[in-house]
Amino acid sequence: MLKGFTAPRSPLGAAALAPSPPWHFAGDALAVEFWNDPDISVHTLPTGVELDKDSRGHSVALFTDYQFTAQNNEYLDPARYQSRGFSVLLDAIWKGTRIAWRPYCYVDNDAALMRGWIQGYPRKFGAVHQTRTFATASAASAPLAHDSRFSACMSAHGWLLVQARVTLREKAEGLVGLLDRRIVGRRYFPRLSAGLHDKPAVDELVRCVSDRLLITNIWVGEGELNFPEAYGEELEVLGPLKVGRGYRFSFSYSVTDVEILADLTA
Amino acid sequence: MLKGFTAPRSPLGAAALAPSPPWHFAGDALAVEFWNDPDISVHTLPTGVELDKDSRGHSVALFTDYQFTAQNNEYLDPARYQSRGFSVLLDAIWKGTRIAWRPYCYVDNDAALMRGWIQGYPRKFGAVHQTRTFATASAASAPLAHDSRFSACMSAHGWLLVQARVTLREKAEGLVGLLDRRIVGRRYFPRLSAGLHDKPAVDELVRCVSDRLLITNIWVGEGELNFPEAYGEELEVLGPLKVGRGYRFSFSYSVTDVEILADLTA
Amino acid sequence: MLKGFTAPRSPLGAAALAPSPPWHFAGDALAVEFWNDPDISVHTLPTGVELDKDSRGHSVALFTDYQFTAQNNEYLDPARYQSRGFSVLLDAIWKGTRIAWRPYCYVDNDAALMRGWIQGYPRKFGAVHQTRTFATASAASAPLAHDSRFSACMSAHGWLLVQARVTLREKAEGLVGLLDRRIVGRRYFPRLSAGLHDKPAVDELVRCVSDRLLITNIWVGEGELNFPEAYGEELEVLGPLKVGRGYRFSFSYSVTDVEILADLTA
Amino acid sequence: MLKGFTAPRSPLGAAALAPSPPWHFAGDALAVEFWNDPDISVHTLPTGVELDKDSRGHSVALFTDYQFTAQNNEYLDPARYQSRGFSVLLDAIWKGTRIAWRPYCYVDNDAALMRGWIQGYPRKFGAVHQTRTFATASAASAPLAHDSRFSACMSAHGWLLVQARVTLREKAEGLVGLLDRRIVGRRYFPRLSAGLHDKPAVDELVRCVSDRLLITNIWVGEGELNFPEAYGEELEVLGPLKVGRGYRFSFSYSVTDVEILADLTA
Repeated sequence: MLKGFTAPRSPLGAAALAPSPPWHFAGDALAVEFWNDPDISVHTLPTGVELDKDSRGHSVALFTDYQFTAQNNEYLDPARYQSRGFSVLLDAIWKGTRIAWRPYCYVDNDAALMRGWIQGYPRKFGAVHQTRTFATASAASAPLAHDSRFSACMSAHGWLLVQARVTLREKAEGLVGLLDRRIVGRRYFPRLSAGLHDKPAVDELVRCVSDRLLITNIWVGEGELNFPEAYGEELEVLGPLKVGRGYRFSFSYSVTDVEILADLTA
Repeated sequence: MLKGFTAPRSPLGAAALAPSPPWHFAGDALAVEFWNDPDISVHTLPTGVELDKDSRGHSVALFTDYQFTAQNNEYLDPARYQSRGFSVLLDAIWKGTRIAWRPYCYVDNDAALMRGWIQGYPRKFGAVHQTRTFATASAASAPLAHDSRFSACMSAHGWLLVQARVTLREKAEGLVGLLDRRIVGRRYFPRLSAGLHDKPAVDELVRCVSDRLLITNIWVGEGELNFPEAYGEELEVLGPLKVGRGYRFSFSYSVTDVEILADLTA
Repeated sequence: MLKGFTAPRSPLGAAALAPSPPWHFAGDALAVEFWNDPDISVHTLPTGVELDKDSRGHSVALFTDYQFTAQNNEYLDPARYQSRGFSVLLDAIWKGTRIAWRPYCYVDNDAALMRGWIQGYPRKFGAVHQTRTFATASAASAPLAHDSRFSACMSAHGWLLVQARVTLREKAEGLVGLLDRRIVGRRYFPRLSAGLHDKPAVDELVRCVSDRLLITNIWVGEGELNFPEAYGEELEVLGPLKVGRGYRFSFSYSVTDVEILADLTA
Repeated sequence: MLKGFTAPRSPLGAAALAPSPPWHFAGDALAVEFWNDPDISVHTLPTGVELDKDSRGHSVALFTDYQFTAQNNEYLDPARYQSRGFSVLLDAIWKGTRIAWRPYCYVDNDAALMRGWIQGYPRKFGAVHQTRTFATASAASAPLAHDSRFSACMSAHGWLLVQARVTLREKAEGLVGLLDRRIVGRRYFPRLSAGLHDKPAVDELVRCVSDRLLITNIWVGEGELNFPEAYGEELEVLGPLKVGRGYRFSFSYSVTDVEILADLTA
């Protein structure tokens, strides 16, 4: 009897690329809000999702640097279960509800890549880095303090795809207009059978369900953001016409579920 | 209208992690035949697949070092589309037909990881290396010649999982008893919806369909093989009780299809 | 006029692998004290350095996860200037003074590799990971708290070289018997001229000079440590006969100097 | 008695980052000749080296993909001893002799990085890729044939630094005007002692000595080349005003020596 939440299924279930939920995440994030061209970003939306007319073009560039664990102390295997990721989130509407549509995301770890595909995040491999803060005072520490600066970048296969910087101005109680929408993604798994390459086996619009979301150490300031042009990617057309606030915060949440909004294979 | 064979689907279809088939592969391979314990390896088989009683425990460790292209000159983007992989193949039977069951495989590239999942290869990320042969005579060249030696290794997340060596003895016309079975894998894509974690959306037993398979520069000799114990893997239990011949050859083939043998969700 | 502290020297001095000192470091560390076999570890000492008879075999396995900056906001280039390292430190004596001899160390970044060689740290490339602590409560957070556990590991070229774990027991005011010795290393740069391969151009025994050393958030507990055998390394012979306390702390310090103890080319 | 050609010196000499010469190399190369602005490239020359007035601005972009061995079958440890590199070579003159000055080079392996510094190549870490040719006919094979195309690229820390392409036109007997100059580099190892940061311990102008150089399978065609702008590098100012021929060939050579042209510390 083979076991495991994902392939490879194995006698003990220890070989699976991703362990069974619940999945727990704790990390640090750097985010920059920006506005892109709604006449372009509209073309990244799947059927049934519209741009939010009240904030047309408002988007978020989100960098995360986090630790993962499931039920077997995965956080004690840091070579496998620490990850760094990048996502773009577009303000959008699904059947009248405010959502954030995630057209592209990147991560630096195979287990995270697979978790993403299962959750409806279309992850590809990227090298993601962000300035970290350390406890002791030093020119190298990047303290959480007024005027402190944090950078982040993401590249894939040698192409720089995103550069960001946040200059902290003040501590905040909440994220105020950031990440206040449920994230919507798309679970997609194609068929390879001849003649069926355009008939995916799985094509579901899904809303992420996050439990026990905690956000702390929130700092707000000014953002800078740039999406350089790169071959083999379509991220740059979502790049900023205008850049807004920047945020730096710590987070944790858990995942055991996903809400299926629509079966797009139908 | 979003395009792309895989997610992320995008306006131009250029962002997809894997391009549409046909997929073409050309590369070099190092293979070692071995026998493991059938009382253990039988537990890696899915329902309906049996070990081959005529060659109980006969298996192949296969290292590949290859270049990929689809329709858009992907081979001219070597940072994205060169890959190195490792697979274990077990001699098995499906409904009376001789097959090779592939319980575990590893690759060093995100596009190859995703292609594998779509083809029914349960790939995880591994760092795979094999000695290469070069055209000019040198102590560093590893010529295709009698007594020439080739090594290969694979590690994942810092754990050494496989070590192999082949000492060439003679050039051969064909692979003679190696890779003469169609490879069977399992397409598997789980559900994340609460209560359905053990009801995969896709669970298909599939037989790989390779077109235009070419094998050349075949050398046969003696193999050495070792599967060290490693945390988070179940490869080592398939390790060799006895090691047989080693092979070094070049190959090419194309993929546009997969044959579905059984829907295991039923 | 070419500029730069290291090669490549360039018109603007921006291409140099390592910028000019002062160098500032801030990070987190995981350390495990252990005792190895003094009859073996004595063979890793250079001329003039002896094992400390008062603590024969007492050694430290030190993992660091840190950010670097020099004078040009290098900490805002996290892809280049974050590093993770591992070192072994042996209790030793130089001319009657208690020192820590560093026979082997590893780091995951080219700029850090070169800084190490200049400082007298014989760095090689290693993939180093340690469990991190995050600010929000979660199963994934690894809080600084009683019974919290942290793991670390280091591998090089696919071989696992070190595994460690620390279980926190209590917060401490100081490191009490850990890292209370000045670290001694060896600056070594060989000649390649024929006939002079064993006459290095630089061979200096040096004592590291750290300014503004700060240590905070110190937790002490129990350590676990293992040096697996690996090809192409000699770390395992320094492995633990006995393991003692484990430590987790944050640090910062600066470097502008090194003290030359002896010119070993003489 | 500690052994090893480089640090870390160890009881058995097996831990050294680079083994003792002779060093043997075998590999494939892609090269593009180009002309940059001599008024700019002149500023990358050290004292005593001049641009070649007969070919002012003529330069070569050289990508290599190779296997290394010394005396202990290092080629059987492919995870450690395969490397891919990139160099820029400028036509120059040293005391009336035609040389190629190598201001910048990159490699993807720690042992190769250190060998480079010892040989006078100012290597930094780069991810280097080139299209490979495989023995079996396939859309993925990139045969050595008329109109076949090969690409190469190099990135460092997520920045794309070089892109090249060569379209093969005809097989050639020799390299005809390419790599017909001895390569000159600079061995440079700084002091860290306070007050001496600008007084390197080693600063030698050196001419590389290659034994048993073999070049085969030479194809000549048209080159394309681009040096994108990148932070933390000064490569782009050497970028092409005009691009010439492209080359693809296989090579092998050995190294046991370097010729010291001048001691620049004097």
